[in-house]
Amino acid sequence: MTVYRYLSFLSDYGLEDGFVAACHGVAAKIAPEARISDITHLVQPGDVRRGAAVLAQTVTFLPPAVHVAVVDPGVGTTRRAIAVAAGESILVGPDNGLLSWAIAALGGGREAVNLTNGDLWLHPVSATFHGRDIFMPVAAHLATGVDLATAGDAIGVTDIITLPAPTSRLSDGAAEGEVMSVDRFGNVQLSIPAADAGRLGIGIGTPVIVRCGRRQFTVPYLDTFAAGAPGEIVAFTDSAGLISLAINAGDAAQQLGLPPGAHVRISQAHGT
Amino acid sequence: MTVYRYLSFLSDYGLEDGFVAACHGVAAKIAPEARISDITHLVQPGDVRRGAAVLAQTVTFLPPAVHVAVVDPGVGTTRRAIAVAAGESILVGPDNGLLSWAIAALGGGREAVNLTNGDLWLHPVSATFHGRDIFMPVAAHLATGVDLATAGDAIGVTDIITLPAPTSRLSDGAAEGEVMSVDRFGNVQLSIPAADAGRLGIGIGTPVIVRCGRRQFTVPYLDTFAAGAPGEIVAFTDSAGLISLAINAGDAAQQLGLPPGAHVRISQAHGT
Amino acid sequence: MTVYRYLSFLSDYGLEDGFVAACHGVAAKIAPEARISDITHLVQPGDVRRGAAVLAQTVTFLPPAVHVAVVDPGVGTTRRAIAVAAGESILVGPDNGLLSWAIAALGGGREAVNLTNGDLWLHPVSATFHGRDIFMPVAAHLATGVDLATAGDAIGVTDIITLPAPTSRLSDGAAEGEVMSVDRFGNVQLSIPAADAGRLGIGIGTPVIVRCGRRQFTVPYLDTFAAGAPGEIVAFTDSAGLISLAINAGDAAQQLGLPPGAHVRISQAHGT
Repeated sequence: MTVYRYLSFLSDYGLEDGFVAACHGVAAKIAPEARISDITHLVQPGDVRRGAAVLAQTVTFLPPAVHVAVVDPGVGTTRRAIAVAAGESILVGPDNGLLSWAIAALGGGREAVNLTNGDLWLHPVSATFHGRDIFMPVAAHLATGVDLATAGDAIGVTDIITLPAPTSRLSDGAAEGEVMSVDRFGNVQLSIPAADAGRLGIGIGTPVIVRCGRRQFTVPYLDTFAAGAPGEIVAFTDSAGLISLAINAGDAAQQLGLPPGAHVRISQAHGT
Repeated sequence: MTVYRYLSFLSDYGLEDGFVAACHGVAAKIAPEARISDITHLVQPGDVRRGAAVLAQTVTFLPPAVHVAVVDPGVGTTRRAIAVAAGESILVGPDNGLLSWAIAALGGGREAVNLTNGDLWLHPVSATFHGRDIFMPVAAHLATGVDLATAGDAIGVTDIITLPAPTSRLSDGAAEGEVMSVDRFGNVQLSIPAADAGRLGIGIGTPVIVRCGRRQFTVPYLDTFAAGAPGEIVAFTDSAGLISLAINAGDAAQQLGLPPGAHVRISQAHGT
Repeated sequence: MTVYRYLSFLSDYGLEDGFVAACHGVAAKIAPEARISDITHLVQPGDVRRGAAVLAQTVTFLPPAVHVAVVDPGVGTTRRAIAVAAGESILVGPDNGLLSWAIAALGGGREAVNLTNGDLWLHPVSATFHGRDIFMPVAAHLATGVDLATAGDAIGVTDIITLPAPTSRLSDGAAEGEVMSVDRFGNVQLSIPAADAGRLGIGIGTPVIVRCGRRQFTVPYLDTFAAGAPGEIVAFTDSAGLISLAINAGDAAQQLGLPPGAHVRISQAHGT
């Protein structure tokens, strides 16, 4: 029996209503000893891909926990509710791909169940607020040591819906990828691992050609965005190990017009 | 003596300043064992009615607690500061109606006091930040087991200012109400209980005529907004048991132009 | 050995990403018994002065704690990372002035170190996320009782970078200062202590002349903004002991056009 003292919670519920607090309260009634850490609740409504990316980039820094994630545009329809053991943690949420990248980041799924045991739910179950009525109460029960198998019928871990990984490929001396996310600072995170840049011979100090659509610009690859001159566009390895573009003291996403999903290609300015 | 391990906190203080954290800190000094759960701090400044609605829809899902709520446009004037025992909880805040719907949701007030005992306050008391200097320290003392009667002079529970309930009435085969709130998804919550819709013969699958001002449209009453086609307007029973209007993958409030307070009338499309 | 059960955390990381949660998680792994209280994470990106003001106005209301603050436009460059003992607390953050006003508010620095002991960091250390990789793990170790001297080389407390204090001076029967901050309610906090107003003979009920640029208006000095008529501009002593301007049920900053940094001069309407 594993008892978890840590619950994490990510959703698209926003912070203006009492939705998040109701979920916290439901968990606290069942597992009063567990601490609940909010990852974010400001995922854009229904943006499963963004929720999956934030979750995957965060969970590896948290203690072993029951991680609850709810970005669930299909709530109340036939999509499954699942719990998946991965690494030392358990992930709980809708089976719509939201959990898939975090499962991989934690070392892959070991065991999974379809949440069919209504004894662990909060009744009456609403049709539209499964975070409060299903996901969080199930997670809290699991945190108290209830066995995963108790939560529902076993399903294959390969049977879980998985989001396609962000594209990233090397060809012709260039790395191609897409904009993964834009953070509060306007930094543009690409889906290109810094390791791939290294394979192209790109390292600290190398000038890099960045192409997006018809535009092209050459930027230095530096240790950090702060090493650039104010206003200068720079490439650097971000805290998730991915190539990012930033403008020191500026908003790169806005100035470069690079929204999430935009296609980007980078290469050495004087490639081999 | 009742000790509370849970404090909840709702306000219009926002998240950009240190106001909320100062309140947390004041409570933690007095009641270090109590956990503080934030309901929301993004109530629009001074919107007592909105604060009351969020509080009432949330507290029933929380453990027995001291619930602190501060939306207090009259801070520093002669409005009273009160604490009210209701159900297994205590509510603390200004006597301006903010607490009234939550008191009702918890089963009605059992005992109430006017917060006149300055020994429980943080001194010097500012004229404008009673959340930090009066409400939160009093709440924290109550959480440690201080008796309600110690906090001030007893007042009648019927003597507390009560907000008029949202209008909702049945007549001529129709239910009339108003827009209670609009959530982050743009879902429009009406003040009409689903039970009233049932009395009109409206159930899952029934076409419903919605009238607001001169406009009228017919929508299906479904289990959940997600059961609608993308872009389709649907009516459903929301997680608070009220009729709501939503657009699957869209923003109903914006598209229908239905702000809080707007008058709405629903009836069966082919009524009996 | 001092063990801290309270960590506070202020940053400009925003709430849309998992940055804050990753920091919480890193701390929870090291110091699972410490509670983490978020002050705010909505400081405008890189606005060290605003971060310093919020931190200083909040820490005195918190229990003895390790206070972590990260507004760090120079992350990854040669700016130092420091920890400073002040009062009963320890402050941890970049040596860019961010901590300086809080150190003063807590009674001045007693001991300071340059964070050079990598044994307390999270490895690999990213170039751009020192909140997660250096500041928070060091703070958590300090919370568990690790001695300050263990975190790095001692530096002089007078050697820490200090932000220039907001200007405030008395001359010719007037007090001159600047707009310190604007809160969510649009209240305009000046850098002029209420005590200075008192020296000018300004007290409750006194009419006050406010000059900003070429504009000038006369407002009453009241107990609280709520004592004004709706729409009336009033001056009052705010919860930090500073003169503030507000409009009851209105947004003073917007209506008066007074952004942070704007120069303001106040005097008695019928001065001596």
